[in-house]
Parts: sequence; structure tokens; C-alpha cells
Amino acid sequence: MTTGELYADLTRRLSDLTAIEETLGILQWDQEIVMPKGAVHARGRQKATLAGLLHQNQSSAALGGLLQRLGERGDLDDIARANVREAHRDHARAARIPEALVRRWASLTVQAHDVWVEARKAAAFGQFEPVLGEMVDLAKQRAAAIDPGRPAYDVLIDEFEVGMTMARLDGVFAELKATLVPLIARVRARMAQGGLPDASWLRSPVPAERQREVGESMVRAMGFDFDRGRLDTSVHPFCGGAGTDDVRITTRYKETAFLGSLSGMIHETGHALYEQGRDRTLGDQPVSRARSMGIHESQSLLWEKQVGQGAAFWRPHYPRLQAAYAFLAAVSFDDFVFGLNLVQLGNFIRVDADELTYPLHVILRYEIERDLFSGALAVADLPAAWNAKMVQYLGIEPPDAALGCLQDVHWSSGSFGYFPSYTLGAVYAAQFMQAARKAVDVEATLGAGDVQPLLGWLREHVHRMGSRFPTDELVARATGRPLDTAPFRAYVTEKYSRLYRL
Amino acid sequence: MTTGELYADLTRRLSDLTAIEETLGILQWDQEIVMPKGAVHARGRQKATLAGLLHQNQSSAALGGLLQRLGERGDLDDIARANVREAHRDHARAARIPEALVRRWASLTVQAHDVWVEARKAAAFGQFEPVLGEMVDLAKQRAAAIDPGRPAYDVLIDEFEVGMTMARLDGVFAELKATLVPLIARVRARMAQGGLPDASWLRSPVPAERQREVGESMVRAMGFDFDRGRLDTSVHPFCGGAGTDDVRITTRYKETAFLGSLSGMIHETGHALYEQGRDRTLGDQPVSRARSMGIHESQSLLWEKQVGQGAAFWRPHYPRLQAAYAFLAAVSFDDFVFGLNLVQLGNFIRVDADELTYPLHVILRYEIERDLFSGALAVADLPAAWNAKMVQYLGIEPPDAALGCLQDVHWSSGSFGYFPSYTLGAVYAAQFMQAARKAVDVEATLGAGDVQPLLGWLREHVHRMGSRFPTDELVARATGRPLDTAPFRAYVTEKYSRLYRL
Repeated sequence: MTTGELYADLTRRLSDLTAIEETLGILQWDQEIVMPKGAVHARGRQKATLAGLLHQNQSSAALGGLLQRLGERGDLDDIARANVREAHRDHARAARIPEALVRRWASLTVQAHDVWVEARKAAAFGQFEPVLGEMVDLAKQRAAAIDPGRPAYDVLIDEFEVGMTMARLDGVFAELKATLVPLIARVRARMAQGGLPDASWLRSPVPAERQREVGESMVRAMGFDFDRGRLDTSVHPFCGGAGTDDVRITTRYKETAFLGSLSGMIHETGHALYEQGRDRTLGDQPVSRARSMGIHESQSLLWEKQVGQGAAFWRPHYPRLQAAYAFLAAVSFDDFVFGLNLVQLGNFIRVDADELTYPLHVILRYEIERDLFSGALAVADLPAAWNAKMVQYLGIEPPDAALGCLQDVHWSSGSFGYFPSYTLGAVYAAQFMQAARKAVDVEATLGAGDVQPLLGWLREHVHRMGSRFPTDELVARATGRPLDTAPFRAYVTEKYSRLYRL
Repeated sequence: MTTGELYADLTRRLSDLTAIEETLGILQWDQEIVMPKGAVHARGRQKATLAGLLHQNQSSAALGGLLQRLGERGDLDDIARANVREAHRDHARAARIPEALVRRWASLTVQAHDVWVEARKAAAFGQFEPVLGEMVDLAKQRAAAIDPGRPAYDVLIDEFEVGMTMARLDGVFAELKATLVPLIARVRARMAQGGLPDASWLRSPVPAERQREVGESMVRAMGFDFDRGRLDTSVHPFCGGAGTDDVRITTRYKETAFLGSLSGMIHETGHALYEQGRDRTLGDQPVSRARSMGIHESQSLLWEKQVGQGAAFWRPHYPRLQAAYAFLAAVSFDDFVFGLNLVQLGNFIRVDADELTYPLHVILRYEIERDLFSGALAVADLPAAWNAKMVQYLGIEPPDAALGCLQDVHWSSGSFGYFPSYTLGAVYAAQFMQAARKAVDVEATLGAGDVQPLLGWLREHVHRMGSRFPTDELVARATGRPLDTAPFRAYVTEKYSRLYRL
């Protein structure tokens, strides 16, 4: 068979895998947004069947043989070679995990989730401890099956952020800690002095329907294409759906925290713009998809934080916001921007954290996961380790496990190694923003209400690139350097020194 | 392996097939209710992939071998034996259709649908003729692959109504024509005399939101379980979803035809009650599912026509309806019931037809399909044959093909042999209703606003039976006789003679 024929066979098989993944995306969206509550058991069956079919097809010897033969051909173009590389990686992982382990993993995560919900409700880590221990053991087995030659936690991180390792994260996170811990201490000292702008208007009540109208208009202003996506309400906000033409974001509304839903919508729109901006000429193939979870988070955080907490973006929209929310008439534009960036030092919860403290919540979890998988930390000692690090990094101690080590869903779903993506995203976002500013006048165009120049830069350098290049190469091509914490550190130091008059 | 082990393997495989079918149900619902319009191409890919996986798994040699071995075991109980029978039928059909034909069929139906939409818009049969010819040829090949020893049209009918044949339908439809054609002639003559109740209130405008409220309250009153289902708005009403715990019905609203959406909701609720009433102890297996399309239609039509166009059902609800729709204050209860059963003799469109003329629309289509597949009718001669039969059975001639032979979607989707199910449903419904009346006092309980006695009888004799028995046996166990047109003929003759004072 010619290379062209082999490659056509490959793309047909990969299209099928994509279609199954997209279908799982629809089942998930449906479950969270519209599914009748009595269907939860049936939905579990449907998802398990599709996940089984996906694993079966992804790990098939036929696909493996095809990838092997194509890997030996010298006449593939760059795109096709990248596509084979991505598909091979997926196949190799799937093929190495025994069917029995896949099934055990699926059933244990369902069980662990239920146990976690109850344990969190009771703020009782002891209830969660046994099943968490089992999850960690099973994750170790999984990692050993995928690559027995590497540390388990490196293998797990690699599932979300290809090529990332503990060695590298240790360095990255040490740099961030060195900047953030003293910076937060200075903010804390400054707050103790008083005299900062009042931000109590952040708790002014706004009816959900009004929040929805304003939020939707911002989502539209950011360039979200409603012909290829939806905006709905859910308990936990997410960006899901089924591929570049069906991108579905959700938000939730709390009457006394209008900024939460607004920034949440901007965050999910950042994810959505990445998905909607994929290169359609690359088809429904692995090469077209988002590079990694870290890069995905870079797109949401770039819009939510770098853009959506900046003065330029809000300047043209603020009069409209003031017209919609009467209490803002008494809030100056500068005070509004200060409120957008309010540092909340008493907060225990990662998802509610501000830009400055968020990375420390992540680093804490990273260090705990790392030590759990190296054996340096026993599952039983987790709560004590958690609380000690909270005191060390943020100066506060959680009163119970619900506000401490039971707060996140990730461990109950077996997503060990996911947390670093959030902060890698913040670091990448600062790199992208710095590079974009060199190419286009971001401040002036955002200030004129025009997101297209910035969006166009992201489309060209990130969205349309998909998975054509490894992450470091993608970032280096876009910004001139691979992963680099300097822009993020400079950005937070400058911004918070200015806002808090340090 | 023991019979128990073999059977456990079978049910696991059949669960997977059910899960794929249910997932296709969700993809379809999503497409019609919430999908962004730009996702239509991607959705086509997703559905094609899932349909391919379903066919692959359903036709697999492993499943075939398992069914063969189980078929030879003497120690299966009745339920398991019925389950093996149903699964074997599905497997045998799937296994006999070559993969290439499955793919050709899928792509031709997509193409034919687009051509049909345009042809209907232009009222130009000539545009549709070539692709319809191809569809008929391919359907013949399909039928020959499934069973070369039987007439093609019998094989096609059998897909929707197991065991039904032209020989039998010819007899059934001859009996119906013999009753309906002269009955309609008498109604027509009576209408020419005038003096019948005024029914112009049927066109009184009602806002869609009010129609929705009233409709939903009726759906609830009929026993639809909203914890295991939904009610939404769509262009074409349907009952879909994903199995007994996720039953989704839809309706549409026309301001000047409130009865259309109301009776539509009652119709779809009839389908839904059948699905929600399946026997959960039979699991997600073929033996638990609805017996046939004809039996499914019997449930929708029993509620829409036999119940929903009767005085007893409306007596307790009419004051509430009058309170909701002010113009009904001037309409007596008897006139309201007359309006529910209005015969509209000038109507060309099947989906808008009343109870009396509907079967003739179906019989016309049946005879045309039968003659197309026997070769007695050429595709090119279809419009002339259609119009001649319209004149013969209903006394009216369509002015163009859009109001004639291009009106239905079925042929463009290759659903040859489906139409008879509608009228078989009406016939079965009359049988079930007659039998239910013998067991419970339907008039008195409906008249007291209590649907449970009737619903309970249907649950026990139809819904919970699923596919345990062949259709004739199901009907005979419930009513004492297999398919029998006498109850339907007696019912329409009595009712319309009374209402029209013939």
C-alpha cells in the first residue's frame, strides 16, 4: 500500500475515535444541563460502554500496526508526521493499560466520587482515606503499566501536560514561590495599614437574569461564535461539547457575587475561543486538537486575568456595566479595577482564590501528590501536611477537612497530576500576553473595544497550531522562549505593587 | 461454559448494543432541540461512527456464535429464551447486510433527504425522482441480502412490524376501506346539509406559553414521570431519548391551532408512557423493549384518539381549559367534543388528517410502496398513481406534488414499509381499549379524572410485556384475539354516526 493509502486508513480510524470522544462530550454536557435526574444510572452505563469502545479501538493491534508502518515511511509531510506522533502516543498509552485495569479504574472512580461527596459533607477525611489509598495504589499500577521505567507521578503528569516532569516543575514552582510568598506578605502588611479602596460593592445583589444578559453580551464581545456553541447554566462551570463546531460553555449565578459569574464566563470563553479557533483544514484529527491542559488553561486565564482584570478591556464596557448595575454609579473606574483584582487572604478554597494566591494552592497540591507517589507522604498524614503548607504559604489554617484537603473533586476521579496545569496555564498566559503586546497594540485596541487584534494573534500562534508541535516548541515559536516564569513574575509584581501601592 | 455463563456474556454484549442505541437517541434529541446549527456536519460524523460501531458489534461472529450456542440449550427460562430470540433476529439481519451496503445506504439517505427538501420546496417531483429510484433499488438489494427467498416489500415491512406481510395487510386494509370510504361519504353528505355545531373556535389564537402550561398539566395528569423524562419544543414532534429512565417528548405550538399542540402532546405522552412503563426487571435487554412500531403507535393513538378525543377524559378537565382559554366560555361541552373529532375532508396532508381519513392516507401509501417494489408501478408514474388514489379514497386531488406525493419525509430516509404501522396502531388501539373496558370501568374512572385504572391495565398487558411475546401473541393475550379490525370499525362507525347524526 502507498503511504497515501495507509494514511487515509489512519485518518478514517482516528475520525472514529474523535467521534466517540465528541459523543462522550455530548453525554457529559447533557448529564449536567438537561438530563432527567432518574437517568443517572443509565447514563453511567452509556458512558462506560462508549469509554470501553474508545479504549478498544484506540488500543487495537490494527491501529498499532498502521501507526508502526507509517512511522517508518519517509514521505509524510509535517502535518501528517505530527498527526502520527500524537496518535501513536494515545495508542501506546491505551495499549499498555490492561483491560482489567481500565475496568477497575472506571468502577473505583465512581465509588470514590460517592465516598468523597459524603466525606466532604461530613468534613471527615477518615471516611475518604481508604478509597483514596486504593486510588493512589491503582494510579501507581496504571503508571507502571504505561512506563515502568519512569517515576509514577511523572507518568501521570504527562497525561495532562505532555513532556512535563517533576524535575522541571520543582524548578518552576520554586521560582513562583520565591516571588509570590513575599509579595503576598507585603500585600498583607499593606492591608493591615488600611486606606485601600472600598470593595464592598462586590457583594451588591444582582438578579441572575440580569447577570446572564450582561455576561452573554461580554461573551459575544469576546468573539464567541453562538452559531458554533452555546452558553448554559450548570452547578459547576465548564467548557465542553463536541469539537470545534459545537463548543458549549456554562456558568452559575450567585446573586451576591456578580463578579464570580462574570469572570467565570470570561474564563470559559477563553477555553471556548481556543476550541472554536482550531484549524479546520487539519480535520477531526489529533493534530488539530488543543496542545495540553496547561495551554488550554493559558487561554482561559489570559482572558480571565490578563485581559478581564485589566483596565483596558473594561474601559469601553464600564459605562454599559454601570447602566446595568445601578450600584456601580458610585464606584469609580479605578476602584472597579481594584475590585476586579481584590486579594482575599482569608480564603481556603482554590476555586475562589485570586490571581496571587492561586498558584500557592496549586503548588501545595503538587507537592502533596508528588510526595504521595514517591512514598514520602502516607495517605493518613495528608491532612496534617495540607494544613502545614497552608500556614507556610498562605498564613492560614483550615478549620476542617472540608475547607482543607477534601475540597477538590480531582482525587476522587483519579486525576492525579492535573493540578499543575492550572498554574502552568497562568505562566504560559503571561508569556503569550507579553509576546502579543510586542506584535499588536493590545492596550489601545482593547481600550477601543476591539478584541480582534489580540484574538487574531492567539488564533495564529496558539489556536490554529493545535498539536502540530510539542508544547515547548509551540511556546517558543509564539514567544521566543519555552516555558519561562519571568513574564508572570514580572506581571504580578508590577500589577499588585501598583494596585496595592506597595 | 454453563448456560448461565453464556447467558451472562450475552446480556453484557446486548447491554453495550443498547447503550449505543440510547446514545444515538441522545445525539438525535440534542440535534433537534439544542445543537448549535454550525454543528450539523460534525453531528453527521458522530452518528455515522456510532451507527457503524452498532452494526459492527451487532453483526459480529462472536455474538452470532454465542446466540447459536444459547439457542441449542434447553435450560433457558421463558424470558431468556425470548431475549435470545429477539437478539438473534437483530443479529441475523445485521450480519446479512454487507458493510458496503450499510455505508452506501447511510450516505444515500443523507443525500436523498437534501434533494427531497429542495424538491418539496419547488413542488417538483422530477427533482426527487432519480434519487428515489436509487433508494428503491438499494432497498431491494437490502431486502434481498436479508432474505432472498421473500418478496422485498415483505422483508421491509418486517423491519418495523415483525411478522407482518402484504398478504395480511391487503386483507386488513380492504376491511378498513370497506368501512371508511362509505362512512366518509355519509359524513360528506351530512356536512353538505349544514346544521352541524360551529367549530370556528378551533382557530382562536392562544399564546404559545399558555398552550405550553396547559399541555404540560395534561401530560402530568396522564402520568408522565418528569423525573424520568422531559418535554421540549421542536420543529417536528417526537418521542425519543435514551431508554425507560430518559424519555423525552417534544411538541410545537401554532397560535391559531391550539388543539394541534395539545393533541400532539397527548400523542407523544402515549408513546412515552409505553417507554416509561417497560419492565425494569428485564434490564436493558431486547426482551424489555417495545414490541413493534405498530404497538408503539397503538399506545400513542389510544391516548390521543380513543381517550383524548372522548367526552369522559375531558369532562373533569374542561372547566380548567375554559378558565385558561377565555373563548371556550361560549363553547358547550358537547360542541367541544364535536370539535375534537372534526372531520376535515379538504385536507391533503397525512399528519394533519383526522381519525377517519388518516387510514386512507396510509393505505394509499402502502399500495404505492407495494406496487413500487413488485414492479407494478414505475417511480416516474408515482404522482399520477397518488392523485388517482386521493380522488378514489378521499374525493380530492392535490394541486401539486408538495401537497401530494412529496409531503412525507419517509421515502427520503429509506423508511419503506413504515406507513402501515400508523394504521395498525389505530386498529390495535381499538382492540386494547375494548379489552380494557371489559376489565376496568374506563368511562367512570376517566370521568373522575383518574387515568390510573386504564394506565394500569396497559402497563400490565402491554408496557411490561415488552418483547416477551410475538405481536399476535401479545395482542391475543391482552384482548383474546390477534390483530382484528372489527373493534376499530365498530368504534369509528358508532362514534362518527353519533357525532355527525348520520
